[in-house]
Amino acid sequence: MAQLDQTHDPKLESWVLSANGHSDFPIQNLPLGVFSPNGGSPRGGVAIGDQILDLPAALAAGLFAGEAVKAAEAALGPVLNPFLALGAGPRQALRARLSELLSQGSPEKGRVETCLHDAADCTLYLPAHVGDYTDFYVGIHHATNVGKQFRPDNPLLPNYKYVPIGYHGRASSIRPSGEPMRRPRGQTKPPDATEPSFGPCQRLDYELELGVWIGPGNTLGEPVRIGEAAGQVGGFCLLNDWSARDIQAWEYQPLGPFLSKNFGSTVSTWIVTPEALAPFRIPQPKRPDGDPAPLPYLLDEADQREGGLNLELEVLLLTPGLREKGLPAHRLSMSNARHMYWTVAQIITHHTSNGCNLQPGDLLGTGTISGPDQSSCGSILETTLGGKNPVVLASSEQRRFLEDGDEVILRARGRREGFAPIGFGECRATIQPAR
Amino acid sequence: MAQLDQTHDPKLESWVLSANGHSDFPIQNLPLGVFSPNGGSPRGGVAIGDQILDLPAALAAGLFAGEAVKAAEAALGPVLNPFLALGAGPRQALRARLSELLSQGSPEKGRVETCLHDAADCTLYLPAHVGDYTDFYVGIHHATNVGKQFRPDNPLLPNYKYVPIGYHGRASSIRPSGEPMRRPRGQTKPPDATEPSFGPCQRLDYELELGVWIGPGNTLGEPVRIGEAAGQVGGFCLLNDWSARDIQAWEYQPLGPFLSKNFGSTVSTWIVTPEALAPFRIPQPKRPDGDPAPLPYLLDEADQREGGLNLELEVLLLTPGLREKGLPAHRLSMSNARHMYWTVAQIITHHTSNGCNLQPGDLLGTGTISGPDQSSCGSILETTLGGKNPVVLASSEQRRFLEDGDEVILRARGRREGFAPIGFGECRATIQPAR
Repeated sequence: MAQLDQTHDPKLESWVLSANGHSDFPIQNLPLGVFSPNGGSPRGGVAIGDQILDLPAALAAGLFAGEAVKAAEAALGPVLNPFLALGAGPRQALRARLSELLSQGSPEKGRVETCLHDAADCTLYLPAHVGDYTDFYVGIHHATNVGKQFRPDNPLLPNYKYVPIGYHGRASSIRPSGEPMRRPRGQTKPPDATEPSFGPCQRLDYELELGVWIGPGNTLGEPVRIGEAAGQVGGFCLLNDWSARDIQAWEYQPLGPFLSKNFGSTVSTWIVTPEALAPFRIPQPKRPDGDPAPLPYLLDEADQREGGLNLELEVLLLTPGLREKGLPAHRLSMSNARHMYWTVAQIITHHTSNGCNLQPGDLLGTGTISGPDQSSCGSILETTLGGKNPVVLASSEQRRFLEDGDEVILRARGRREGFAPIGFGECRATIQPAR
Repeated sequence: MAQLDQTHDPKLESWVLSANGHSDFPIQNLPLGVFSPNGGSPRGGVAIGDQILDLPAALAAGLFAGEAVKAAEAALGPVLNPFLALGAGPRQALRARLSELLSQGSPEKGRVETCLHDAADCTLYLPAHVGDYTDFYVGIHHATNVGKQFRPDNPLLPNYKYVPIGYHGRASSIRPSGEPMRRPRGQTKPPDATEPSFGPCQRLDYELELGVWIGPGNTLGEPVRIGEAAGQVGGFCLLNDWSARDIQAWEYQPLGPFLSKNFGSTVSTWIVTPEALAPFRIPQPKRPDGDPAPLPYLLDEADQREGGLNLELEVLLLTPGLREKGLPAHRLSMSNARHMYWTVAQIITHHTSNGCNLQPGDLLGTGTISGPDQSSCGSILETTLGGKNPVVLASSEQRRFLEDGDEVILRARGRREGFAPIGFGECRATIQPAR
């Protein structure tokens, strides 16, 4: 687990003035991504305020030494998989050096300035090539809420409190924030119909998740022990696991969700490092009385102590009506990553417990992170109780599910007394009509 | 759909004499793979009898012209994804030219001979990098047999005859024939236990499947219509979807199989082309009376006429006891690809019907292809009725499930009056003890 050090000092300010104050990207964050400046090719960069530090340029300018060189060299290309493969050492060295270079008073300010681009002029990409994408189901409030709708008698199945439930998702259709998402078509069968029919999804939903970028990975056949699992985390992002609820209800048995999910998933483009999140670590929330303890292979003292995450998670909805009237996006939900029943280390260890190999740049989704009440639901299925209680917007529009032209925006923020708040950047996409 | 032409002429013989007679790889087959000759680097090759034609060497020797050059150039590297991306035109041109070059009486025999390697001296690899792997469930006898064991009251769910059921599998753990497979560990909970426990799988199984290598692929948001789906097939292989039945029973609800499958899958190393399989096309088997017709998006006249495959499928088991006594492998099952409820075109069209994008080198599994009786089961779970009726071997060993040291061998063969039989090569792997 990352130690707190001078890079977390809340008094640290950057000479990039936009980084000080309310930016998602203060000097205590320093997330990595892949960007191209106007007309340039995709390359690794670091977000600082409203600027992006060009890593190849900074490397060429001789601003790095030692392990930080290794990290920067692994971030020259159009994907950060080589960087993720390096693991914690080079990543932490790069962070320490970036913190120096970008701090108020840095003697290198002049040379660093030549390596900055206005983020507004840059294009952002998926930060890594996703080899495999796995989605988990660690939001126990979500599992209970949704379980009630799909299986009223049986919301939480007997395995839930023993098995960090997960399934494989589609890697090819993961898209970076900002790319539109097309409404899928598919087979659905309303309960009163005698036969299914094929057409545009009528119950389109988002899912509020954290994504975990895998670092070094493991060899096939060699499980990652729980005490080593944190070292497999290369960073975090926001993940919107778009879901077609009507397609899902008809297709999901017995092999799980498929076309209801694989038409697309949206991620935020910045990899927020474990080091940046160190101040927001909390103990794994205590299980309710009567819940079984995790099996021994999922138990680790350090993970119990600091495997939880205190991150505010927010879902905003911007509709054509709100846009037209100049009204702000509507907050659909405010949740927190502390509502995860399993830690990130536990899902990694479980995933590899059978020998399954993770690779650098693999993406794990936590599953929808809902809180305990109606204002903290991570999907509209939960918020509207399956479409029964529509959301009413300031534009007088109503939403039971998502409509064409709707834009869903996910945000995350770490906030803690005595530390600089950090953000994830946005994970947003607009629904296009079915083709 | 591929036309029959002179490359299918059963009278055609090769001057590579081992290709004539009982080889899986007569001149009518010409499958592609990735191999390395002793000490060399991985590259594209074509199987002919007990030899492998070195495609880079043949290209360098100037043996190709026109579209065939394009195909060979796409097969120079360590993966055939670029070749698969080209689609049918270059692939067919390459086949036509290879058929000429390798035929009895070819004036190029001398130049071609210098491009051959003894297959026995070569290493074979996965023929492509698998971006995403999807497994279907088109074997209706398998679905019924297994459904009975997992859900006695409800073997075939109401969606089965409408939806080509599929789910995403693990790409990273797909391995070529010959690599051992380690027995997984995992959580299981026998029905009479009050709590699950963690340990080596006790009910390890194979699954007899065909694999489909995807060719050109489609753009996200743009479905592949059923009439165009055959053009997306780059070729076929055998696929053993190893399954840990005890882990599966405990973990699979509600999101489907996960750790029970993703510890490894084995594929045969040769890509058998649609052209090679053209003689073995049959009408899609007629659905039993009372079954619904496929929805219109899955219906195509040509696919109905020739979307089926008549391929014999075989499962052999070689145990330590059989090996020790010098006894041959035991045939566990003889099935046929005609027992698929959905065609390959239907699963491709269904997969992309929501806009999901397939990419060159993606792998689709058909799901276990069992026949209608006990001698044609595609998994040992079915053959032994869930372990109740053990298989007795000539070595006096018994098998309820697979044991350490057991080797499972899958084979496929196209056989038709008036045509040369062709094979797939083997898909084999030996079980290693749990770590």
